[in-house]
Amino acid sequence: MSIWIRNGTVVNCDWMRKADVVIEDGIITYVFHLPVSEYSKAVGTDLKIPENIERVIDATDKLVMPGGIDPHTHLELKFMGQVSVDDFYIGSRAALAGGTTMFIDFVMPVKGESPLEAYNQWRKMADQKVCCDYGLSVAISTFNDEVMEMMATLVEPEYGINSFKFFLAYPDYMLNDGEFYHAMRHCAKLGALARVHAENGYVIVVKQHELLAKGITGPEGHPQSRPEEIEEEATNRACVLAAQANCPLYVVHVMSKDAAIDVGKHRKRGSVVFGEAIAAALAIDGSSYYDEDWTFAAAHVMSPPLSRDSTAKNYLMDLLACSYYSGDLHLVGTDNCTFSIAQKKVGKKDFTKIPNGVNGIEDRMSIVWEKGVCSGKLDLMRFVEITSSTAAKIFNIYPRKGRIAVGSDADIIIWNPNKRRIISASKHHHACEINIFEGIQIHGVCEMTISAGRVVWENGELKVAKGSGRFIPLPPFSPYCFSTIRRRAKKMRPKSVKRTDA
Amino acid sequence: MSIWIRNGTVVNCDWMRKADVVIEDGIITYVFHLPVSEYSKAVGTDLKIPENIERVIDATDKLVMPGGIDPHTHLELKFMGQVSVDDFYIGSRAALAGGTTMFIDFVMPVKGESPLEAYNQWRKMADQKVCCDYGLSVAISTFNDEVMEMMATLVEPEYGINSFKFFLAYPDYMLNDGEFYHAMRHCAKLGALARVHAENGYVIVVKQHELLAKGITGPEGHPQSRPEEIEEEATNRACVLAAQANCPLYVVHVMSKDAAIDVGKHRKRGSVVFGEAIAAALAIDGSSYYDEDWTFAAAHVMSPPLSRDSTAKNYLMDLLACSYYSGDLHLVGTDNCTFSIAQKKVGKKDFTKIPNGVNGIEDRMSIVWEKGVCSGKLDLMRFVEITSSTAAKIFNIYPRKGRIAVGSDADIIIWNPNKRRIISASKHHHACEINIFEGIQIHGVCEMTISAGRVVWENGELKVAKGSGRFIPLPPFSPYCFSTIRRRAKKMRPKSVKRTDA
Amino acid sequence: MSIWIRNGTVVNCDWMRKADVVIEDGIITYVFHLPVSEYSKAVGTDLKIPENIERVIDATDKLVMPGGIDPHTHLELKFMGQVSVDDFYIGSRAALAGGTTMFIDFVMPVKGESPLEAYNQWRKMADQKVCCDYGLSVAISTFNDEVMEMMATLVEPEYGINSFKFFLAYPDYMLNDGEFYHAMRHCAKLGALARVHAENGYVIVVKQHELLAKGITGPEGHPQSRPEEIEEEATNRACVLAAQANCPLYVVHVMSKDAAIDVGKHRKRGSVVFGEAIAAALAIDGSSYYDEDWTFAAAHVMSPPLSRDSTAKNYLMDLLACSYYSGDLHLVGTDNCTFSIAQKKVGKKDFTKIPNGVNGIEDRMSIVWEKGVCSGKLDLMRFVEITSSTAAKIFNIYPRKGRIAVGSDADIIIWNPNKRRIISASKHHHACEINIFEGIQIHGVCEMTISAGRVVWENGELKVAKGSGRFIPLPPFSPYCFSTIRRRAKKMRPKSVKRTDA
Amino acid sequence: MSIWIRNGTVVNCDWMRKADVVIEDGIITYVFHLPVSEYSKAVGTDLKIPENIERVIDATDKLVMPGGIDPHTHLELKFMGQVSVDDFYIGSRAALAGGTTMFIDFVMPVKGESPLEAYNQWRKMADQKVCCDYGLSVAISTFNDEVMEMMATLVEPEYGINSFKFFLAYPDYMLNDGEFYHAMRHCAKLGALARVHAENGYVIVVKQHELLAKGITGPEGHPQSRPEEIEEEATNRACVLAAQANCPLYVVHVMSKDAAIDVGKHRKRGSVVFGEAIAAALAIDGSSYYDEDWTFAAAHVMSPPLSRDSTAKNYLMDLLACSYYSGDLHLVGTDNCTFSIAQKKVGKKDFTKIPNGVNGIEDRMSIVWEKGVCSGKLDLMRFVEITSSTAAKIFNIYPRKGRIAVGSDADIIIWNPNKRRIISASKHHHACEINIFEGIQIHGVCEMTISAGRVVWENGELKVAKGSGRFIPLPPFSPYCFSTIRRRAKKMRPKSVKRTDA
Repeated sequence: MSIWIRNGTVVNCDWMRKADVVIEDGIITYVFHLPVSEYSKAVGTDLKIPENIERVIDATDKLVMPGGIDPHTHLELKFMGQVSVDDFYIGSRAALAGGTTMFIDFVMPVKGESPLEAYNQWRKMADQKVCCDYGLSVAISTFNDEVMEMMATLVEPEYGINSFKFFLAYPDYMLNDGEFYHAMRHCAKLGALARVHAENGYVIVVKQHELLAKGITGPEGHPQSRPEEIEEEATNRACVLAAQANCPLYVVHVMSKDAAIDVGKHRKRGSVVFGEAIAAALAIDGSSYYDEDWTFAAAHVMSPPLSRDSTAKNYLMDLLACSYYSGDLHLVGTDNCTFSIAQKKVGKKDFTKIPNGVNGIEDRMSIVWEKGVCSGKLDLMRFVEITSSTAAKIFNIYPRKGRIAVGSDADIIIWNPNKRRIISASKHHHACEINIFEGIQIHGVCEMTISAGRVVWENGELKVAKGSGRFIPLPPFSPYCFSTIRRRAKKMRPKSVKRTDA
Repeated sequence: MSIWIRNGTVVNCDWMRKADVVIEDGIITYVFHLPVSEYSKAVGTDLKIPENIERVIDATDKLVMPGGIDPHTHLELKFMGQVSVDDFYIGSRAALAGGTTMFIDFVMPVKGESPLEAYNQWRKMADQKVCCDYGLSVAISTFNDEVMEMMATLVEPEYGINSFKFFLAYPDYMLNDGEFYHAMRHCAKLGALARVHAENGYVIVVKQHELLAKGITGPEGHPQSRPEEIEEEATNRACVLAAQANCPLYVVHVMSKDAAIDVGKHRKRGSVVFGEAIAAALAIDGSSYYDEDWTFAAAHVMSPPLSRDSTAKNYLMDLLACSYYSGDLHLVGTDNCTFSIAQKKVGKKDFTKIPNGVNGIEDRMSIVWEKGVCSGKLDLMRFVEITSSTAAKIFNIYPRKGRIAVGSDADIIIWNPNKRRIISASKHHHACEINIFEGIQIHGVCEMTISAGRVVWENGELKVAKGSGRFIPLPPFSPYCFSTIRRRAKKMRPKSVKRTDA
Repeated sequence: MSIWIRNGTVVNCDWMRKADVVIEDGIITYVFHLPVSEYSKAVGTDLKIPENIERVIDATDKLVMPGGIDPHTHLELKFMGQVSVDDFYIGSRAALAGGTTMFIDFVMPVKGESPLEAYNQWRKMADQKVCCDYGLSVAISTFNDEVMEMMATLVEPEYGINSFKFFLAYPDYMLNDGEFYHAMRHCAKLGALARVHAENGYVIVVKQHELLAKGITGPEGHPQSRPEEIEEEATNRACVLAAQANCPLYVVHVMSKDAAIDVGKHRKRGSVVFGEAIAAALAIDGSSYYDEDWTFAAAHVMSPPLSRDSTAKNYLMDLLACSYYSGDLHLVGTDNCTFSIAQKKVGKKDFTKIPNGVNGIEDRMSIVWEKGVCSGKLDLMRFVEITSSTAAKIFNIYPRKGRIAVGSDADIIIWNPNKRRIISASKHHHACEINIFEGIQIHGVCEMTISAGRVVWENGELKVAKGSGRFIPLPPFSPYCFSTIRRRAKKMRPKSVKRTDA
Repeated sequence: MSIWIRNGTVVNCDWMRKADVVIEDGIITYVFHLPVSEYSKAVGTDLKIPENIERVIDATDKLVMPGGIDPHTHLELKFMGQVSVDDFYIGSRAALAGGTTMFIDFVMPVKGESPLEAYNQWRKMADQKVCCDYGLSVAISTFNDEVMEMMATLVEPEYGINSFKFFLAYPDYMLNDGEFYHAMRHCAKLGALARVHAENGYVIVVKQHELLAKGITGPEGHPQSRPEEIEEEATNRACVLAAQANCPLYVVHVMSKDAAIDVGKHRKRGSVVFGEAIAAALAIDGSSYYDEDWTFAAAHVMSPPLSRDSTAKNYLMDLLACSYYSGDLHLVGTDNCTFSIAQKKVGKKDFTKIPNGVNGIEDRMSIVWEKGVCSGKLDLMRFVEITSSTAAKIFNIYPRKGRIAVGSDADIIIWNPNKRRIISASKHHHACEINIFEGIQIHGVCEMTISAGRVVWENGELKVAKGSGRFIPLPPFSPYCFSTIRRRAKKMRPKSVKRTDA
């Protein structure tokens, strides 16, 4: 299949200009700039279009951008006694409909389970259903010598894992500081990125008991049991421990202002730490938990909770924006983990039993567009960077993914900045009944999604085949994460003093 | 005994001017301003001096200030297999020679020991030897129901305890986050201040093993096993947990810039948190650990270690200074805990065995004077505040202590700003052989110390009686610490939402 | 006249406790603590009450506090073609009704007028009308040699001026950076505090023209012509220039978050700089300018405008709070400068002609109480500090003013924390028709005001005599402002290098 | 001429990997990745090398990077009565020897001179001498209607100017705030970047007089007349005014910590502002001014002066580093403006007459390498970004310049990270006798420089032809600077309120 995308404005993370793009066999084979002024003469205008083009797409007045990469999903996850309703088929379809062409899901063994076995289960679940490319990241909830060996195995090319996730909350997953510190030292040796869910689990347990004892059983108990301060505390702690372990760290779902500020603080100290915002945190806030409609309130239950500060969502976007260089937040994921109303109702009498999770994989690109680009905060290059390129760089698949360039995978979206749509559960592709972004108007629409060189979303319709997506192995030692680590290691080497009297 | 101090400049934390002071029976009975201009006419110039004054002291060109209060000492402490060599007699003499007329020592039961029994031992040790007034603070290294009851007992007037100390490092003392959080909730109910030693103990243990394994056995291993970042981390964590527990917090020995900045950050959020600098941290830095002379290096071993950033000492003073209002650091202590060279040598082959501790109780006032006042950072009122008044306020004995006012205890020093002295172990009153401030010149001298109305230090000589000092019970619910706590509690009350569908 | 205030809780800036107060001939002659526990035995309980007390006031369950000091008013000011309607009689009555017993007004010569003549006019206006004690501060809008001499004259005891105000905006008053810098160097020599109105006047003029040209003529043009950023810019600039001039600086009406943060930043660098919040900025925000009711919107026109950030008002209080030590804001004034609706209407067609000014002198204490104390941010001692003591310290009349102590002036209020009132123009004592605090409920009431030993406000009624207030000369070289300046000067002395080849 | 660079590691700002590069006729025609693992299979390994390659260069174990771009030079500048000794021939040779293949020089008309005429003079001077590509930026020292028209002319393609520079200091060049604000509003309309020299000129003049009057005539007077605080002040002011004008701003030579912090502060607020560090500020500090050797001290005189804080140089690199995303500093220039010892000596009796300027164009790349890469702060991609790509993006010539990509100009360097050299005036290519980096060892060497497809620096020898360099016109409306400006303009549009009573 060959495609010629004509007259669009191609946007990469480092430049944008009018250019044509040619795709052959799933790969981008030509990108050439259109002459916009005499200054651009030098840039390859005399390249010739291949013969036998099967389809020509007119992208005049539209943006041609790398497909989105969602670095944080939980499809088909067994969690808190339920299984999230977006499975790998439904979830990947929703992704494509929204302009996301790849995602990274978490393998989640609970305490005592084998990471390796869990990995195999996940591959089995995913491979037969997924409709777009995907990668995996593995959670480590037990840490011992056997697990250390499995981590080493998983990093091998055969398994394609280059990141591990750790929890500082949730009794089923939580490690203590000593274990976490050890595990990051191990990650650093393997060339794997450490990712962390940062909340102080000790405090949460006490708060939950206390609130239930005082008769607070509704969803409003959820944010009260998890004050923002304990997200910030754990974020800072994780950054300090990672710096001591000389291991690159990726903080998932930074929800509050202060946690984001901490990420930036450690960046300035020279630590290699990345902050992930999620779509939900950029668009809505935690006032939902106090809504008088239980179902609505419960639908927003996720952890860490949405910020109780109504100015946080704009602030997080400010940090993402800083056009080109922000030290604080680096990319946008979703933590997509959807549950039906019936599943949420398991926690009707006890908020601690409401399964945690919200949607996002479909609307992430739209939310970042609306809140970031339309607000004048993000330019288009930074839009591409935080929705796609940075994820590809961190997970070491750039420029194969995350860039429109010769030789790259043909994962491309065509975005119309002059159309509008309103997000609604009535039209979304998720399996859940509620969309947390209901009613938000987006001044821009993903009109076409090309995945691995095939047009899979067009005219509001999906054309995908179950299981057609590929597992993308993620190689270790991403230069984006690890290139300063070795020099830092030298600087951190223990120093010894020679003494005459010793 | 009655004394009339004439023509000096009296300095309190809120004003300074020429004034005379009369002392009778250990109490200040008159303070009257001398007319310095027509503006001051109104202020009590016609008061009459009592008859029968036994001694008149001329304080022309000198400063008459409240005696210092050292809020943090470890006299006669059994620690790491040794007993610190400054006992209550030697230590309190050193204090008086330096212008400090009261100190607060720590009762230190190790894991499993009874706080109440330890308290009784401490009183016994101290009461028979101490030469100036003192108070106590009790460390809690085990937390359970029985200990909670003992804490309640200790807060009773009979025992006079209004603060408890917690450790986030040292296996013998360390609590985990859950215990610490519970304990602070208990403190808040009792009206007692929580004090914390803030370092991440988990990381230290790993670092110590690693360093010893790599053959780093000298004192340079000490700072390398305790990076500054882990002090900052634990400081932030302690502040967050205290805020959640709605308990006032006092961070002892803030040694590094970032830890100090954290204290200020939490102040701005409305938390009631106090930061204590210590004399050592204001005058010297951690380069000492790398000295080629083992004995010199080992003499500086204390925890957290002296900052490895040579600009930290000035920065900490800047935070103390901010003339009148700094949100970051609030008072100066010493952590005085001295060991002889022989005792330090127990760690000759293994830095983790070097007993931790340095001197300070004698020279604290001088160090703050030199580094704070002479550098132009502190004005005299702020000098009095951070060396004396604030401690009295926090520990709820102000204005009985920490102020020159009618009715206050006659703990007074007369300071000559025009004299100089050089600190030296050859002249100090400590029992240890090394003085970490050796060679520092001080442009000001404490010429006279009056303790409880008696002149005990004059012409370089001490005139004290063993056991003459009094135990000062410290009442709970200090307004300085607790007055906003109750209103804050109201604001923190759990909120419940009424729902029709629930 | 002698008064005995019994059984109240006396609150000073550094302590609070149950105590009785005796007043004789306008001066406080006795303050003695009531025994609250065995710990307080030592403190003067055996003092005897004088005979012949004329009045005994029961203050059980009430607070006995120093009368407020408003450091920033414009009574009877000729400004923008109008004269503010609160003259010295009306304004000082309003002050007393609200618990404020002293204020500092500005002498305001415009460009070309003589500061000395203006001073004399002001004294004449004020002395015959004022009902409470007051001081003056003189604005300098022209700077030359003659003015320098007049400044020196004004600092003499006869004139009693210890501060000068400078404007970085308003064509009638504005100095350029060179003049301002020179003037502050002169202030430093005279021992006078520099005060500054900080906005970038250059930008304002351009913005005003631009907005009018675009047809924006209503009060909404006011904030748009004076963006918050230019307040911050000028605040930072003023602080830098003051530091270079080694002159203490007092920033009047800090209205926005960033300006406040700048004050704190310079404090930490060791500069002597004070930040004044005003009552309006603590209670309301700039949304008023966009109100559809012109009269309402115009009533809020003042400069710098109220913050457009609705969270600013709470943030400013947070900075004032930091119980006891904040580096950012230090006291609360009002900028009271009221105009009638008819006067405001002069700007009906052109927002730049609306006379700038709002009320505050009456309700300042209540606003700080409600927003600071009732919110749990301020404790009572800090309430006294920021409403009274700090002003007295800065302007060098402490502890004569701003403290309940033997020998101090009997300016005292009795505050009932258990009563409520609602602020309303229908009941206020101002001459203007609109009260910007209309409808705010205050959980506390000033039940009695004692000024110079006489009860002047009681049972909601004023008993004052026109002209009974005194002019209080303010002596230069306040230790609170100047005590580190000399040592800093030494450090700033130019350094010369001796060179062999030069 | 065709060249094949084999087996090197190609480094771009967004990726690095082993790759071969082919150059034909001055343009890069092929870049293909070498297979490093199975993950990279997809990326164009089957491309064929063109025939007739004239030269093959082996780059095994070496780095192949875009040639450096120095965004800030003053070659052949008439300044302070002297002409800088590095003319366009000498200066461009020095650039190439150090690995810099393009620079942007300043056209500098003084007050009253015509910018257009000055531009023509500069082109005449440069075109006949320059040996590498260059662009121009024009200083505006007079602002009026005529100058506004000239600015519009200069932005036309024929003239190729897309940035203007403004001075807040130097009587010969300085604009006041009103002029500067107006000029930036004009720049924004033209699509031109504003660049600013940020120091408070008013204070400098007073300080200079004062110091000379006190007999401080040597180079130590230079930093004392220009305290760092006034750099920070002017930087903040410039950022605020630019934000109000909605104009992108580029702060040249950020020398001090606080100025850098200000740039970051404004970035976070959403302003489009760039901070330029210069080589000198990253390697040395202002202690030089106090050197006893007059010649040495005078050689370092430049403005703003080198920071007096010895930790500043590392801090500035930290801000540049923040691997990938820092909000504070963005690229590295030099301000290269060299004078001979004889020229410097004009200021022998008066430091204000010492011509300001230091070297840098040759050693900039080496300094950033040593202080940034070798210290473990920068990874290689960020090294390329701050020395080359960012300049190309800002000045709108990316990816023609600043990137190794098909179609880009063949400006390439080959860097050997395993060789060392020591910087010395004895070997440098500047015309001045002193090199401020004398003696610094660099752990990496630029072994080959390719300019416009020709090898011009090899084996320590230059092979260049006078006048062979090209003037590169810089087009306006760089997307990197302007892409959010239009959306921001919408947000900043004046708002009008409809009122019934108005």
